[in-house]
Amino acid sequence: MKNPLKLGVAGLGTVGAGLLQLLASRGANLEAALGRPIRVTGVSARDKKKDRGVALGEAAWFDDPIKLATAPDTDVFVELIGGEDGIARQSVEAALSAGKHVVTANKALLAKHALALATLAEANGVALNFEAAVAGGIPVIKTLREALAANEVRRVYGILNGTCNFILTKMQAEHRAFDDVLKEAQDMGYAEADPTFDIGGFDAAHKLALLATLAFATNVEGEHVHVEGIENITAHDIEAASELGYRIKLLGVAHLSETGIEARVSPSLVPRHATLAEVSGVTNCVAIDGDFVDTLLLVGPGAGAKPTASAVASDIVDIARGFVMPPLVHPVASLKTYKRSRLAQHKGAYFIRLSVRDEPGVMAAIAKRMGDENVSLESIVQRKSRTVTDQAGLPPAATLILVTHDTMEEAIRKALDAIERDGKVAGHPQMIRIEKL
Amino acid sequence: MKNPLKLGVAGLGTVGAGLLQLLASRGANLEAALGRPIRVTGVSARDKKKDRGVALGEAAWFDDPIKLATAPDTDVFVELIGGEDGIARQSVEAALSAGKHVVTANKALLAKHALALATLAEANGVALNFEAAVAGGIPVIKTLREALAANEVRRVYGILNGTCNFILTKMQAEHRAFDDVLKEAQDMGYAEADPTFDIGGFDAAHKLALLATLAFATNVEGEHVHVEGIENITAHDIEAASELGYRIKLLGVAHLSETGIEARVSPSLVPRHATLAEVSGVTNCVAIDGDFVDTLLLVGPGAGAKPTASAVASDIVDIARGFVMPPLVHPVASLKTYKRSRLAQHKGAYFIRLSVRDEPGVMAAIAKRMGDENVSLESIVQRKSRTVTDQAGLPPAATLILVTHDTMEEAIRKALDAIERDGKVAGHPQMIRIEKL
Repeated sequence: MKNPLKLGVAGLGTVGAGLLQLLASRGANLEAALGRPIRVTGVSARDKKKDRGVALGEAAWFDDPIKLATAPDTDVFVELIGGEDGIARQSVEAALSAGKHVVTANKALLAKHALALATLAEANGVALNFEAAVAGGIPVIKTLREALAANEVRRVYGILNGTCNFILTKMQAEHRAFDDVLKEAQDMGYAEADPTFDIGGFDAAHKLALLATLAFATNVEGEHVHVEGIENITAHDIEAASELGYRIKLLGVAHLSETGIEARVSPSLVPRHATLAEVSGVTNCVAIDGDFVDTLLLVGPGAGAKPTASAVASDIVDIARGFVMPPLVHPVASLKTYKRSRLAQHKGAYFIRLSVRDEPGVMAAIAKRMGDENVSLESIVQRKSRTVTDQAGLPPAATLILVTHDTMEEAIRKALDAIERDGKVAGHPQMIRIEKL
Repeated sequence: MKNPLKLGVAGLGTVGAGLLQLLASRGANLEAALGRPIRVTGVSARDKKKDRGVALGEAAWFDDPIKLATAPDTDVFVELIGGEDGIARQSVEAALSAGKHVVTANKALLAKHALALATLAEANGVALNFEAAVAGGIPVIKTLREALAANEVRRVYGILNGTCNFILTKMQAEHRAFDDVLKEAQDMGYAEADPTFDIGGFDAAHKLALLATLAFATNVEGEHVHVEGIENITAHDIEAASELGYRIKLLGVAHLSETGIEARVSPSLVPRHATLAEVSGVTNCVAIDGDFVDTLLLVGPGAGAKPTASAVASDIVDIARGFVMPPLVHPVASLKTYKRSRLAQHKGAYFIRLSVRDEPGVMAAIAKRMGDENVSLESIVQRKSRTVTDQAGLPPAATLILVTHDTMEEAIRKALDAIERDGKVAGHPQMIRIEKL
């Protein structure tokens, strides 16, 4: 029997409690597989008296997570506190500096400080594992760091936010408006009272930054990611996309192009028969295009106490097996310099929805502006005119749906600006990228 | 700079050539990540003179793979010869006995000898990695061995044979007959001249045996798997299933039930809006139900030189990083005794297609036989009578499609036997299991 692996667990919220539950129920099995037991020797959380529904057993209580991080009994510091700075960061830094392995589920921390923390882990020869930080139970970090280590990754993309996917799936299936479904998601606990972080795309951007960092061996931070949320997606958009054979998903996409790395979170059209298009509800997925593996798609629960605990546990098991590698695949010293590709240079097809005034010459004017920017159109659908005043109080208008051939984003934006200036459209044009799968 | 990791590669077919191509194109990148180069120091194949389109560089040529396996310069023996016995097995055993790590893509070898080879690897403290043996580029071995190490797996299942999935997808999309599409698959190189191994389900059974062995910490051999192929699936079945909201896929399913492990490869109905139902063409997928992770689905290329080389390379990279673990997750000594659950005890719903004589009393007789065995029906669809003589020269008949509620396989088989004995059906009843996803 080898020495036990001793854990200090900081943060006993749902994931922390899930981890303790997992270790209690699967402990004997893990010990048989690993040839050594995994023990929780210390815990730390805000409120010692709170009933978390799990036994803390013989674990020592620490009021201060930093003391837990550096305690002699801690082999692995498990950070489940959350937050990009403050005590989470301090305790992780303290643990790494003290030569302790770290397992964390904290995407905000890593999206901002991955480079500094990886440097610290390498200098101390310890693991910094963060499977649970992206897409919950889906083992995408392991897949990128290990399974696809020999591939040049060209694109990593996916459905990275369950709240948004739940809302879009419901809007699609039940022909309902965004606000209406958001309210239901809030009632069901799938969306926060202030849902901005999720529906605005910021949560997905954090995750995408981490995926891109691993995929491209460079340092992509959360703030490098172009972000658009789903709050402006209407039932009209979803219906029109559906008629054209597409679904609308909030995708995070990081793509290695000739001009650098393009990283964006935005509503996107995907072909309705693509496997990814059938990923519904709160389920997440991540796809990876590599030069040798072609395309790999991983689908699973993106959140939840038990799936997230499963991911944290796999990080711990790797450490118990003695698997330690540079946190960002490449040693920090050999990472490439980050080079951002401007979104204006994005090349692809676009779905455009315009509310046009129902009068002669409108179509000609729109077609001219598109032609001026060399944007060619694959399809044009004019939907039934509305005969009543719309939400914004505008007069009766027709809806025009355009799908472009591949074009530069710069060109389409210029054309749409000119169309708006012409004053023949009501409201702001809707522009959604079509993602090739 | 650490010592190079030295490979002896035996077998230079498409996968072997793909691996050499990968190491040539990604070598510098791998060296930067790993801090050590990976070198091919020896190769072995049948024909030294054959042009494989890749440079063998400074690698020494071995006529005898066993000599390569045990050569002083070989750190890792990469077995890409194939075959469940013979020289593949001998050379792998020789390598392990000599304390060399082994990477293999040989599913036939492992489906038969996993236990003995894992024992040998453990005794010599070396790795036996086989990511490429199941589902090509999909990292399902790593996922089961590492990512889901802390889960109790309840079911592992998937589309494990690209040839069958190609044929079924084409039959579905183009309303064509099995023989017709098989011929096209053969012309396209997706099916062998003798396609029995693929379409009979035997290839999938080998893969499923390996997945089940890892998932359930016991030794499931290929011959333990119940196998049915797709050769009896008709365009009728696919059309009828489609009308009921299902797709037909050849699934490998291994399931931990109260009575033991049920492992089967058979055509199965899956709900058409399940993500797995949209896995089309030669693409493979593997789903894993775990107690903590819920359901994880991995989708990707199940074959091909480059994806398979990607998987082989990831196994090599793990060894270069010093990751060595028991090949079957648990040390062989702590594996559980294999307990087979009889298929007669399978509980689930069934799709039944019967060609019934178009005469009074037929339906009543069928309903009675089902009732006698306590099989209750969820739906009954009688299709348009055929007014012409069918392929088998039988007189005009109607097609009856039944979908049962959950029942025991024993019961449905007894009922169908009785129905056949009653002499009111033409030909053999078609029975396809419906898989709950």
